[in-house]
Amino acid sequence: MPRRSASANPVYKIVEVVGSSPTSWEDAARSAVEAAAKTLRDLSVAEVTRLDMKIEDGKVVAYRARVSMSFRHED
Amino acid sequence: MPRRSASANPVYKIVEVVGSSPTSWEDAARSAVEAAAKTLRDLSVAEVTRLDMKIEDGKVVAYRARVSMSFRHED
Amino acid sequence: MPRRSASANPVYKIVEVVGSSPTSWEDAARSAVEAAAKTLRDLSVAEVTRLDMKIEDGKVVAYRARVSMSFRHED
Amino acid sequence: MPRRSASANPVYKIVEVVGSSPTSWEDAARSAVEAAAKTLRDLSVAEVTRLDMKIEDGKVVAYRARVSMSFRHED
Amino acid sequence: MPRRSASANPVYKIVEVVGSSPTSWEDAARSAVEAAAKTLRDLSVAEVTRLDMKIEDGKVVAYRARVSMSFRHED
Amino acid sequence: MPRRSASANPVYKIVEVVGSSPTSWEDAARSAVEAAAKTLRDLSVAEVTRLDMKIEDGKVVAYRARVSMSFRHED
Amino acid sequence: MPRRSASANPVYKIVEVVGSSPTSWEDAARSAVEAAAKTLRDLSVAEVTRLDMKIEDGKVVAYRARVSMSFRHED
Amino acid sequence: MPRRSASANPVYKIVEVVGSSPTSWEDAARSAVEAAAKTLRDLSVAEVTRLDMKIEDGKVVAYRARVSMSFRHED
Amino acid sequence: MPRRSASANPVYKIVEVVGSSPTSWEDAARSAVEAAAKTLRDLSVAEVTRLDMKIEDGKVVAYRARVSMSFRHED
Amino acid sequence: MPRRSASANPVYKIVEVVGSSPTSWEDAARSAVEAAAKTLRDLSVAEVTRLDMKIEDGKVVAYRARVSMSFRHED
Amino acid sequence: MPRRSASANPVYKIVEVVGSSPTSWEDAARSAVEAAAKTLRDLSVAEVTRLDMKIEDGKVVAYRARVSMSFRHED
Amino acid sequence: MPRRSASANPVYKIVEVVGSSPTSWEDAARSAVEAAAKTLRDLSVAEVTRLDMKIEDGKVVAYRARVSMSFRHED
Repeated sequence: MPRRSASANPVYKIVEVVGSSPTSWEDAARSAVEAAAKTLRDLSVAEVTRLDMKIEDGKVVAYRARVSMSFRHED
Repeated sequence: MPRRSASANPVYKIVEVVGSSPTSWEDAARSAVEAAAKTLRDLSVAEVTRLDMKIEDGKVVAYRARVSMSFRHED
Repeated sequence: MPRRSASANPVYKIVEVVGSSPTSWEDAARSAVEAAAKTLRDLSVAEVTRLDMKIEDGKVVAYRARVSMSFRHED
Repeated sequence: MPRRSASANPVYKIVEVVGSSPTSWEDAARSAVEAAAKTLRDLSVAEVTRLDMKIEDGKVVAYRARVSMSFRHED
Repeated sequence: MPRRSASANPVYKIVEVVGSSPTSWEDAARSAVEAAAKTLRDLSVAEVTRLDMKIEDGKVVAYRARVSMSFRHED
Repeated sequence: MPRRSASANPVYKIVEVVGSSPTSWEDAARSAVEAAAKTLRDLSVAEVTRLDMKIEDGKVVAYRARVSMSFRHED
Repeated sequence: MPRRSASANPVYKIVEVVGSSPTSWEDAARSAVEAAAKTLRDLSVAEVTRLDMKIEDGKVVAYRARVSMSFRHED
Repeated sequence: MPRRSASANPVYKIVEVVGSSPTSWEDAARSAVEAAAKTLRDLSVAEVTRLDMKIEDGKVVAYRARVSMSFRHED
Repeated sequence: MPRRSASANPVYKIVEVVGSSPTSWEDAARSAVEAAAKTLRDLSVAEVTRLDMKIEDGKVVAYRARVSMSFRHED
Repeated sequence: MPRRSASANPVYKIVEVVGSSPTSWEDAARSAVEAAAKTLRDLSVAEVTRLDMKIEDGKVVAYRARVSMSFRHED
Repeated sequence: MPRRSASANPVYKIVEVVGSSPTSWEDAARSAVEAAAKTLRDLSVAEVTRLDMKIEDGKVVAYRARVSMSFRHED
Repeated sequence: MPRRSASANPVYKIVEVVGSSPTSWEDAARSAVEAAAKTLRDLSVAEVTRLDMKIEDGKVVAYRARVSMSFRHED
């Protein structure tokens, strides 16, 4: 296997973002994706890596979803 | 402990199925369960093993839920 | 580092609770939090540690969320 | 999805118990379940989360099984 | 590394099966293996991926073992 | 969220396959994918879940790759 | 293996506690152990299951250690 | 659940940083937090995801702590 | 915290051993412990890290238990 | 342990990058490292955190390697 | 189940070895296996537990594979 | 990729050691490293794989750190 240049291959970076919503984890996750999409190219899949809830006075005040996405890397 | 026949004991198989929905993970997971239920017997619990989203043009176009279920095995 | 008394530091206990709902995991998780909040102090975050579904006759009859919470410990 | 009361949904708590036996992990696990069943309602499944052995003078003196169970929560 | 045909290499599929027994996890796991062996070729190792118990009226009524096996795949 | 029919949503099944090769894990994994592709539709991603080697007389005689794939489910 | 009474075998329960300290994780963990020891018998080992820090205004204001302990269970 | 704008919900990004210290993991972790705090807003919790040590000539020359933090995301 | 000599503190090494038995995992694990105990000092706990079975001609021919033990380290 | 300045300790950030190659995971991983090295200082180790393959028409069209690297952090 | 001698059962020990190669992970893993095979008996399977790369001046200078093997234990 | 000799590549073995200290996990981990360094060559990194505490009479009597190290393997 010769040590040839690998520079033509596409490269992606991973980013993890936490979205938040008062109503649902879907809404929280969609917030995270849409915020990331404002500056990042070629998002195609977002995996959920954690779900949790913020509680105040014994009530759930926010659903939060942590999502991991890959985007096209420019040097 | 004698090496007696074990054939009277019920046996279950595990299947993993991915459901998809434009609106929610509940809808996605229910799709997966209902598709599996068309051909499999004795489903009783379905565990979520992965949640992710499909993204197009910076928007979430599908919520996907991977679920693991056991069903009654016939030889 | 002297072996001084540690008794002034706040201490929390972890509890895991499973909530259930016919309609959504958000509803199931909120049930778990609200039930815990009736007797426990200072809940602030609840992490989801498992999501599953109860199935009867090939239909999802309940969405269940297992959540882990910390609360203020009184001796 | 309106913020309706979730109080009609059943809620379960998780407890982890370690049973011990000089002869087998089945016996150890059964001890754990039966001890828990004296005070807890609606146990239906117990998952094994760890198996180990206590050793003295190079001999196994106890098989231990850690099991996780859910039981019906009363406020 | 030329893109040569890989078809001469043997291929195996993974199956997960849950066996059940009123007396022991060994008996449960053996049930799972023997049920799978009725239709599958070349089983050689079965890994335990979960052990649990079914409980009724505070008593263990079944020991269950989930096992993962590979078998020879025919197209 | 009404309990509407979920049947229009696409559903995928997960399969795990082990490929084997005397020369490389790439070759082993490609064997697994190509064997699966003979009968399954819509494979798009295959994740590696385990890499190991078979050894005989102190030599590596096969590289093995376990891969997990999703394919379009027909009822 | 006869279904004999398992009641003579000792049974332990698992508890998870989070201790906190402005100076070190050792101090935080010791707080957790000493708080638990006020009411629980036969603590012998405490495993660390998570370490984190509370931050205010860009400064670490508390080191927190989550520890898991087993204690002698009385029915 | 209507597809309403999610843009009012706060969004956080996750960053992982490794701090290093010749004396303790607390010092290493604090370094990581304080370096991150110079440019990032709203840090509130930092979780430890790995602890290791650098060794030279058989001596520990640095304690290193990898910590994961979330910070307020600006588009 | 001065860099004082740590040589008075006891040090243990971890060893992983796989035992095998035609009849049970308890017997397999006990074999592993007793073989290790012939040459190692101060074994006190052995944790099970994997359970599997060897299959020949569709029958379980051996139950195998991998166990992890710590023993007193002499330089 | 006095609360002294920790600013002299070196700090590293973690980045995850996915490389891709039509021929091998080594080539894919090398792409990821070389792309990252164009802008980041002091890369010394890159850990593989996921290997997968992109499939089109039943053929592997790309081997992909996700790698995690640490680099020197400048404020 | 009588406490009979378990000494006739074969016992294996687990060893983890890291191989290194300038060209591929297969070469690195084969180095690890062949080095281990010089002194150990009955190696049959080697599982990969970690893959990483050593980087110098922004270039991959070594592929490293950590592999776990079992070998026949002599007392 | 020809099946050339791999013997020129360096090979490392992994060892796990548990250190103990009455005062801190740093001291415990340093004990483990220094004990290992008496007989092993080329230790460069030690990863912490478990932290726990020994408790007597409700007090922490020892902090223990399990660390994993690689060292240069001689046949």
